[in-house]
Amino acid sequence: MELTLSPTIKKIERKSLVSPKGFTATGIHCGLKHKKKDLALVISDVPASVAGVFTTNAIQAAPLKVTKDVVYTTGKMQAILVNSGNANACTGKQGELDALAMQQLASDQFDIAPNLIGVASTGVIGEPLPMAPIIHGVAKLAPNNELTGALDFAQAIMTTDTIMKTTSYATTIDGKEIVIAGVAKGSGMIEPNMATMLGFITTDAAIESADLQAALASITDKTFNSITVDGDTSTNDMVLVLANGLAGNQTLNPAHPEWQTFIDALQMVAQDLAKMIAKDGEGATKLIEVKVSGAISEQEARIVAKSVVGSPLVKTAVFGCDANWGRIIAAVGYSGATINPDTITIKLGDILVVENSEPVKFSEEQAMNYLKQHEINISVDLNNGPGQGLAWGCDLTYDYVQINASYRS
Amino acid sequence: MELTLSPTIKKIERKSLVSPKGFTATGIHCGLKHKKKDLALVISDVPASVAGVFTTNAIQAAPLKVTKDVVYTTGKMQAILVNSGNANACTGKQGELDALAMQQLASDQFDIAPNLIGVASTGVIGEPLPMAPIIHGVAKLAPNNELTGALDFAQAIMTTDTIMKTTSYATTIDGKEIVIAGVAKGSGMIEPNMATMLGFITTDAAIESADLQAALASITDKTFNSITVDGDTSTNDMVLVLANGLAGNQTLNPAHPEWQTFIDALQMVAQDLAKMIAKDGEGATKLIEVKVSGAISEQEARIVAKSVVGSPLVKTAVFGCDANWGRIIAAVGYSGATINPDTITIKLGDILVVENSEPVKFSEEQAMNYLKQHEINISVDLNNGPGQGLAWGCDLTYDYVQINASYRS
Repeated sequence: MELTLSPTIKKIERKSLVSPKGFTATGIHCGLKHKKKDLALVISDVPASVAGVFTTNAIQAAPLKVTKDVVYTTGKMQAILVNSGNANACTGKQGELDALAMQQLASDQFDIAPNLIGVASTGVIGEPLPMAPIIHGVAKLAPNNELTGALDFAQAIMTTDTIMKTTSYATTIDGKEIVIAGVAKGSGMIEPNMATMLGFITTDAAIESADLQAALASITDKTFNSITVDGDTSTNDMVLVLANGLAGNQTLNPAHPEWQTFIDALQMVAQDLAKMIAKDGEGATKLIEVKVSGAISEQEARIVAKSVVGSPLVKTAVFGCDANWGRIIAAVGYSGATINPDTITIKLGDILVVENSEPVKFSEEQAMNYLKQHEINISVDLNNGPGQGLAWGCDLTYDYVQINASYRS
Repeated sequence: MELTLSPTIKKIERKSLVSPKGFTATGIHCGLKHKKKDLALVISDVPASVAGVFTTNAIQAAPLKVTKDVVYTTGKMQAILVNSGNANACTGKQGELDALAMQQLASDQFDIAPNLIGVASTGVIGEPLPMAPIIHGVAKLAPNNELTGALDFAQAIMTTDTIMKTTSYATTIDGKEIVIAGVAKGSGMIEPNMATMLGFITTDAAIESADLQAALASITDKTFNSITVDGDTSTNDMVLVLANGLAGNQTLNPAHPEWQTFIDALQMVAQDLAKMIAKDGEGATKLIEVKVSGAISEQEARIVAKSVVGSPLVKTAVFGCDANWGRIIAAVGYSGATINPDTITIKLGDILVVENSEPVKFSEEQAMNYLKQHEINISVDLNNGPGQGLAWGCDLTYDYVQINASYRS
């Protein structure tokens, strides 16, 4: 379920990737896009432990192959070079060479071994990556640990995003301040399992890569994998976490007494990013949060929540401020989860609309006014078990169609 | 794969449910909708063998329970009473009583045992079915075997449909003319497994119910379950086939030498209806047909085809006449089917755009002109096995959003 702020974890206003000790970042315009920033870099002062999750799409872009190799073989990472405007996907052998060239360019420029450098790309699929702008661009990158560096990075990874997505939290472990910060991009083509999303998280916590991977895995389903915009999953998406240890805490592992504090702070970062991505779904005007309780398991609760928040009919009804709970219950029914068809309760905000699978009299006007808000909560109680889960998405609008009917033009 | 007309099967222009011997039909306005026809009836002169497929949604509307009981318990059916304008779904115990009352009304009016009468409803979910209009309406039903009766039926089952969906074919079995005809409704909320679709097929062939069920099952995945409009599946959908035996052929069964001819004719009817439903997807301007070859099995080919035709990004790109094959290959990748990421070939009509998973130079102008047609063919060859399959869908447009943002208003 949604994690709320605990007394031991505090939100840091603004700043992001550079909030933890020992990270610098930047973002510039190199020429892959017409005008906007399109090349981003984050560097740790020292090699960091690394964890990653990657798209489950069977077609994977070239940079994923290169970056996976760093995560799974080197097990450490010190820098990430990201371009937007071109996905370097379905670009064949040349695409793989170009991804390796990006890695090598960053290596030469910042004097870091290539196998400590991750690369990521986002944008149009199937066009060769223009290397000249990247070559010139990398030479100009000057990362810093100021707010501007963090914001430039956040801007430079955006594609159809309309807002920058950054967040940071601080907590205390072993008496040391630990900071975890994140940045993400993604709006359309967002679904389970990392679809067209890039997420980068930095922390100064000390933790080995294997434990960091376990920590990331434990919160991914509850955060990044619980959002959906249009159900499409992409060839390029990844979330990377770098932990450089400069906070000076005792190395974290599941036996550490403050392990859960670290997990919670990491979840807060991931949850913030996930919700920002859902809210910024292409053409979206509203964030929709679906909370499911009474499922036979936490996993099934999330399946039902994603089915409801992913339904095009629910999404258009929310756009139209129409309290059409029939579409909600239909989406519960086809979710594939185990349900009792006679025990379902549904609320829109605090307005009870269905009880024991039958309609309840409610004020249509009150419901319509509720649905005019920018954050809509739909609660579904299956009354069939202990499982609870959340998913986030957005409404489906004319602008979604417009944006995607002409993305390449 | 798509079946094309064989010399032994001929299309009958117009007419529909009443084309086979011994069927009459009608449709009237009874008052569930403001003005349009909303009550439909088809009757066989004699009890007919019956087969049915029903929604897999765990939430099932009351009429489905009643009709399933006829199909699975009686095993014969003589009449089907259908209303549009109200789905009688999520209406609790009263809804079940109302569905049974519909059955009883038709029984009394036409002097047919209730357990030989199927009922179906389509429309808004969760509002009690107004019985007064139905009571008055049933008393006025006067089925006939003229074209008007068939068309009135076809009109009376429509909801957001913009076109009537009817088809008929004739063939010869045992030297007798056998006619198979069908009518369907459905536009939004169409997906695998019978989503918000009603389909009724009549034939004068002689065949036992169990064999008819096997025949229907053998063609459902290739036809009704191979279309998608928005991925939502509904609480109400069903396809029923009535076979009254009045053609006088030897009773058909899989050992009959002309069994395959019957199956083919049935598939032609179902395929026509399925394609009409896909083409009439809410707000659609184009029918999209995706043909997949080279999959490891026929089933996996259909999975890939449905993944492509169901992708909101592919659908909006087709609407925008944008040859964005990257979205096609991404949808192939996330379909879940077994693929080789390096051997995929994609064509838009005859225009080769991807070969061995890499882009091919093509004329954007020629591709855009092709995508301006009203029937778009996308071919995907996985080059990974013998499996072939088809799926049909439509583009995603502003009008889809408009229709569904205000369906209840």
